[in-house]
Parts: sequence; C-alpha cells; structure tokens
Amino acid sequence: MSLIVQKYGGSSVADAESIKRVAKRIVETRKAGNEVVVAVSAMGDTTDELLDLAHEVAPIPAPREMDMLLSAGERISMALLAMAIESLGHDARSFTGSQAGMITDARHGAARIVDVTPVRLREALDEGAIVIVAGFQGFNRDTKDITTLGRGGSDTTAVALAAALDADICEIYTDVDGIFTADPRVVPKASKIDRITSEEMLELAANGAKVLYIRAVEYARRHGVTLHVRSSFNNNEGTIVYNPTDDETAGHNESIESGSEGAVEEPMIAGVATDLSEAKITVVGVPDIPGKAAQIFTIVAKTGANIDMIVQNVSAASTGLTDISFTLPKSEGQGVLTALRAEQDEVGFLGLQYDDQIGKLALVGAGMRTNAGVSAKLFTALFEAGINIEMISTSEIRISVVTRADTINDALRVVHTAFGLDSDEEAVVHAGTGR
Amino acid sequence: MSLIVQKYGGSSVADAESIKRVAKRIVETRKAGNEVVVAVSAMGDTTDELLDLAHEVAPIPAPREMDMLLSAGERISMALLAMAIESLGHDARSFTGSQAGMITDARHGAARIVDVTPVRLREALDEGAIVIVAGFQGFNRDTKDITTLGRGGSDTTAVALAAALDADICEIYTDVDGIFTADPRVVPKASKIDRITSEEMLELAANGAKVLYIRAVEYARRHGVTLHVRSSFNNNEGTIVYNPTDDETAGHNESIESGSEGAVEEPMIAGVATDLSEAKITVVGVPDIPGKAAQIFTIVAKTGANIDMIVQNVSAASTGLTDISFTLPKSEGQGVLTALRAEQDEVGFLGLQYDDQIGKLALVGAGMRTNAGVSAKLFTALFEAGINIEMISTSEIRISVVTRADTINDALRVVHTAFGLDSDEEAVVHAGTGR
Repeated sequence: MSLIVQKYGGSSVADAESIKRVAKRIVETRKAGNEVVVAVSAMGDTTDELLDLAHEVAPIPAPREMDMLLSAGERISMALLAMAIESLGHDARSFTGSQAGMITDARHGAARIVDVTPVRLREALDEGAIVIVAGFQGFNRDTKDITTLGRGGSDTTAVALAAALDADICEIYTDVDGIFTADPRVVPKASKIDRITSEEMLELAANGAKVLYIRAVEYARRHGVTLHVRSSFNNNEGTIVYNPTDDETAGHNESIESGSEGAVEEPMIAGVATDLSEAKITVVGVPDIPGKAAQIFTIVAKTGANIDMIVQNVSAASTGLTDISFTLPKSEGQGVLTALRAEQDEVGFLGLQYDDQIGKLALVGAGMRTNAGVSAKLFTALFEAGINIEMISTSEIRISVVTRADTINDALRVVHTAFGLDSDEEAVVHAGTGR
Repeated sequence: MSLIVQKYGGSSVADAESIKRVAKRIVETRKAGNEVVVAVSAMGDTTDELLDLAHEVAPIPAPREMDMLLSAGERISMALLAMAIESLGHDARSFTGSQAGMITDARHGAARIVDVTPVRLREALDEGAIVIVAGFQGFNRDTKDITTLGRGGSDTTAVALAAALDADICEIYTDVDGIFTADPRVVPKASKIDRITSEEMLELAANGAKVLYIRAVEYARRHGVTLHVRSSFNNNEGTIVYNPTDDETAGHNESIESGSEGAVEEPMIAGVATDLSEAKITVVGVPDIPGKAAQIFTIVAKTGANIDMIVQNVSAASTGLTDISFTLPKSEGQGVLTALRAEQDEVGFLGLQYDDQIGKLALVGAGMRTNAGVSAKLFTALFEAGINIEMISTSEIRISVVTRADTINDALRVVHTAFGLDSDEEAVVHAGTGR
C-alpha cells in the first residue's frame, strides 16, 4: 500500500462544485488501494476577503490575531472537503495545523516549520480514514498560539507531511498541467516538462515560475520528497520533480547532476522563466577600494531586502570608481534607496539610480556552466531579436539576463525557440491564478 | 477591580463598523478599571452561510466536520475584534473554545459543558490583557475534537466563563434594550423590566421570549451568575437577571420568592411571553386505566421530542375513555405522530389529531399559585376580547394558555393591559434578530 500526499490549492476548492470534484478524485486515489493525506488551501478568495476585513477594523492588525483570523479559511475548506468525502461513503477526518502536529517557530505570518509530529494522522490512517489537513497553518509550542506559514504555505504543508509520514509521493494539484518550459500564456508552444530535478525546479521557481513555491521545493529537496505537479481538472500526467541523489542528508547542491536520462555531457535545458517583479538599483561612483561592497550590502541587509542579482563592473582606471548594480523586489526599492542615501557620505559613492522597468529572464538546466555554447546561443538569440542585455549573472545551472521590461516576452519566445523547446502543439491554459 | 464578562451576538459584530463600535465599548469598560472577558458570536449571517455550503457538498454532513466548519465563524469574529481593540492601544488576545478550556462532552452540534479550565484566560488577565473568547464552541478531551454547543451556545459560553472566573457580572449585549414585559414588536407599550429573578426569566424564555436562551439562564441560576441584558447600540441600563438566594448549591426551584422589593404577598407579574413555534397533538380515546399515559410518553420520549404542556381531561364516565393533549415544537410533530401510529394497537387509543395553528401565551411572575385572582383576571381578559382558551397549564410562577395562532397577538395585548404592564412611552425597537 502506498501513502500519497495530495495538495489542492484555493482555485481547486473555490466552490461547492469544485470541492465535490476534488472529493471524488481523492476517493479514487483511496479506492486504488492507497493511503491518502490531503493538504488543502482556503477556498478561492477567502484569504483575501479576510485580509480586507482585518484592514477595515485595524490599520495595522496584530500579527497573532491575523494568524488566528486567516487560519479560519482552511478550517472551512477542510471541513467541507471531509464532509464531501464522507457523503461518498468513505471515512474522512479533518485536522487543523496544530492537530496535525505542524510545529513552527513563533514568527506570525511567516512561521517556519521546526517539527512535524503527525501522531493523530498516523492513527487515523491506521483506522482506514482519509486524512484532510489544513494547509498554511501550524502552532507554536511555547506560546501555544496558532501560526501561519506565509506565501506558499500550503505547498510546504504538503511536502512537510510527505516527509514526516515517509510518503511515496507528494502530488501538488493546481490549475495547469504541470511545469512548462516557459509560461504558456506568453509562449503558446511551451512544452510540459515530464521530469525535472529539484535543483532546476528551484532555479525556475526563484526566477519567476509561479506554479511551485521555492520554499516547498527547498523542503522537498532537503527531505528527499518526490513531487508530482499536475492539474486537478484532468487526469493527465504532470511534472515529476525529483532528487537525482538518494542521499537525503546531503542538503547541499555542490553535486549537480544532469537531470535527464540522456548524454550527461550535453547541457539539458529544463526551461526558461521570466520575472517582471524586480527593480534595479545602481550605486554610481563607488571608490574601488576593498570593503566598499561589503559596506553597501550591510546597509541593504539591515532593511531586510531580498537581493537577487548583483553585478559589479570593472572600474575605469582613470577615475578609480566603479558602479555596483543589484536587483530586488520593487516593493523593497524605496526602503533600500532611503537607507543608502542616509549613508552616502559614509560610503563615499556619487549617486543612486533606480529603474523599475526591467525584466529578468533565466535559462535553467543542468551542465550549463561547463558548456560555453549555451551562453553564446542565448546572447545570439537575444541580439538577433534586437533585445539589449543590461545585466548578466550565472550559476551552476542557470544564466540570468536583465532586459527592458517591455521586451521580456519577446525575449522569452526567441530564447524558447533557439533552445529547441517549442512543442508541436499548443499548451492548454486554464483560467486561474496558478497558486 | 471587578471582573466583567461580556457577550456580543452576531448582530452586534455583523460588519467591520459594528466590530469597531463593540471594540470601543470594551475598551471603555477596561478603562473604567475592570478586567474584561468577552464571548463573541460569529459575524451576522456567517453561520447560515457555512451551513448552506455544508449542505451543498453533502446531503447529511458528518457532525464532527460540521463542528469543525462552524467553529471557523467565531474564529473570524474574535480575531477581528481583538485586532480592533489592539488598534485602540489596548492589549487583547483571542482564544478558541479549546484554548479557553471549554471542555464539553462529545455530542457534536449540541455539546454540553462538562468543565471550564480558563488557565490561559486568567494568565492573560493577570498580564493586563482584554480576553476575547470564541462563543458557541468547545472541545472534547477524549476525542480531542472540536465541538459546538448548539443554539444559544454563545450566551452559555459567556455564563460559563463568568462562573468559572468568578466574575462580578455577565453582560449579555443584544439589539434590544433588555427584557420586556412583552414582545415590543407586538405590544408597543411593553415596559422594560429592570430586575427579574432567574426563575421568572427561565419561564419567560421557555415560553417564547427570545432575548435569552433557557440554557444560559439555567446555567446562570445553577452557578449563581448575575446577568445584565442590555443593548450594544446605546448605554441604557438593561435588565438584571438575579438569583434571589445566594445559596448557589441549591439548584432547585422549590423555594420561590418574590422577585420584587414590594409587598411579598402581592403577586408580581414579571411579563407575558408568546410562542407560535409549537403544535398540539391530541391522542383521542385513550383507555382511562393506569399506565396508559406512561406508555404514550415513553413512545414520545424515544423520538427525542421536547414536550411542553401536557393536559389530560377527566374521562367521560360513559365510555371509560379520555383524551391526552400535549404541545411540542412543530419540527418534531411528524416524527412523534409516526411513532405513535406505529404503536396504536399496543396502546389502544382511537386516533390522533394534529394542530399546528396554535399559539401559546404565558404569564410569568412570583406568587401566582397562591393567588387565585391572577388566573381569574387572565381568563376574564381573554374572554372579554373574544379569545377562546384551548388548553391551560400552570406552574409555581407561570400560567400558560393555548389559543388559536391568529389570536395570539390580540391576546398578548389585552393581557398586558389587564395586568397593568403598559408603559407610558413606547419602547424603542431596533432592527435585528434579537439572537
């Protein structure tokens, strides 16, 4: 008997009809002889509605109470889902985050899982029940308070349950057919990826692919959980996100392997992701002496901003000055500018430039760094399409470039074609947010 | 420092504006130097909406899951209320039924409180916080499952907290100014009652007064909790429901005392209540031999029906047969009829009559039984108004009569006037359900 963990997002349980459809799918999995544990998000727009209410009653809602409030959303969807399954004649039991043993730290709104003790879930499974667990929520042992995991929380709940229960697979149900070589809404000929390594998936997610959250992929990678990302609207095979090594304790990505069954010397392009949510800050005229970059990024780090790409040009010999550029979420831009301006005299740079009209494109795949032909092909494709490259950054399995925002979709299409990723048929795109 | 427990119903927290108004009232109570514990219901129609959803996904929703679902309602209102208080600069913490130590039996949907262990509430109060507790919900220690208390649950939560925390008073906030001598929507000259004993209140509630639930009044009476029923829309003094004896352990109503400071020999009419929710079943032609009534009511009891009035006429000597009539909630009528028909031959009655067009009027007050003038005045008033009396039942502090449903409001007005209860000014009636 296999143990399967399934996760259904808010768009899969948006109304009574959807919940009944999901219930049928869960029952089919049970009937096929599997033990089933389900992590479920709040219905459709419930979370947004609760957030609106909170901001109506309090300008800055207390974080503890915000978590208490938001956790009501999954309580509703999980109870309805359990009812729907029971009415199909199968035993089902719903459990809150705390009942499921999802122990977190006390950081309300962005809690981290510190332990998973699914004692009650194991008991219910042993009694033959289908187990439904509230995604997104946990509780803190010290304060005994309810916590929520923040963005991507339900995916993370599912993966954490799969790890703790030693599940055979963790199925992430969403409103698209799986992970694609590019966003099908921009590149209609994007191909569904059948298998991808967790490292590659991590790079795609970090560079704008929205189907899976980085955090859940990281958790899966660290705990050796295999993911199957698929649609809740059909029975198509989705995308398997797997760990090429079975050594679950490694927890580092020093050893990158090819994610394909093909020739290991050939670079295998997994996909192309784009991201329009970032802005670029350039610190102009930084004295090219040791310690200045450290000084700048210490100031930036104090604001709590999440820096993505960093590029430092070689300094012009005549001036002894250099420019340092970095990208970060637009929402964090003003805070960082203010912090840097306050220390301008101390650091001694000449000025700041802010640009929120950038787009980022990332090409992800194994074996990239050792194959110079990949970057050459990428840059050539962009050049031939008349797209200017403003920043370049590379990692073991990724090349990222920054371009003007209004050229990013063209860039995506030409790169997708240049690397032979175009499918023969057009991808089917479902409505929905893909969360 | 006094400890005040306050209960706010769904209509008092129906939207963000109402929640903010209630938050201000709570803060005022805190600023006046009191410790404050608040029990709160789900917002407005939340519970009904959740019930609708449940019936959409499952014809007969599983009771455990129904409680999990419904408990989300108070979780939302209590978190919002706590946020609103915090944004006014006061420390507030919300607690679920289980966090508040509201221990119940395992009867989902109609759980009974078996213990209240408000350890965390006491701690929060000692730290200076305002405590917000989810009404209506508890949890069972054996199954570790969430339970709900059923109708009137939030009132009961408030009273149980007041008892367990040894509160000085339990304020029940609603959308009317207090308990009236009759329903102000029918009798515009109804007077607000300033003080009433818990026994009298119990009779009024049991006979159709909807402001307080019987169950909460019973709990208050048994545990010596003084209630103050008042409006959340103004600062008027409401109605004090008190226990004339301090002997909290008595728990019986053998010793009825006058509820007023006036002459103890005079009957003191507290109020008049009417009820249109009941039906009458008459078992016709019952052999007038010992044991037949017991046989009939054993059959009725097995259906779980809540019998109210029972009247047996003297038998006609010529036939040796008698009729037994009783009233019960209309919703339970068909089940009881079916059960009785199945045993007709066994019991040996001739037939059954069902009448759901009845109205019940109850006159409640201390010193009634020893004063024959009260019933005479009641029957005369009804006679002069041309209203026929179909059944009569009396207790220590109550006289109930059954009339045709369409005469019940006229009956209420003439009785109210006959007993001198009319006020000089018209009562202000607020919109709302009065729950």
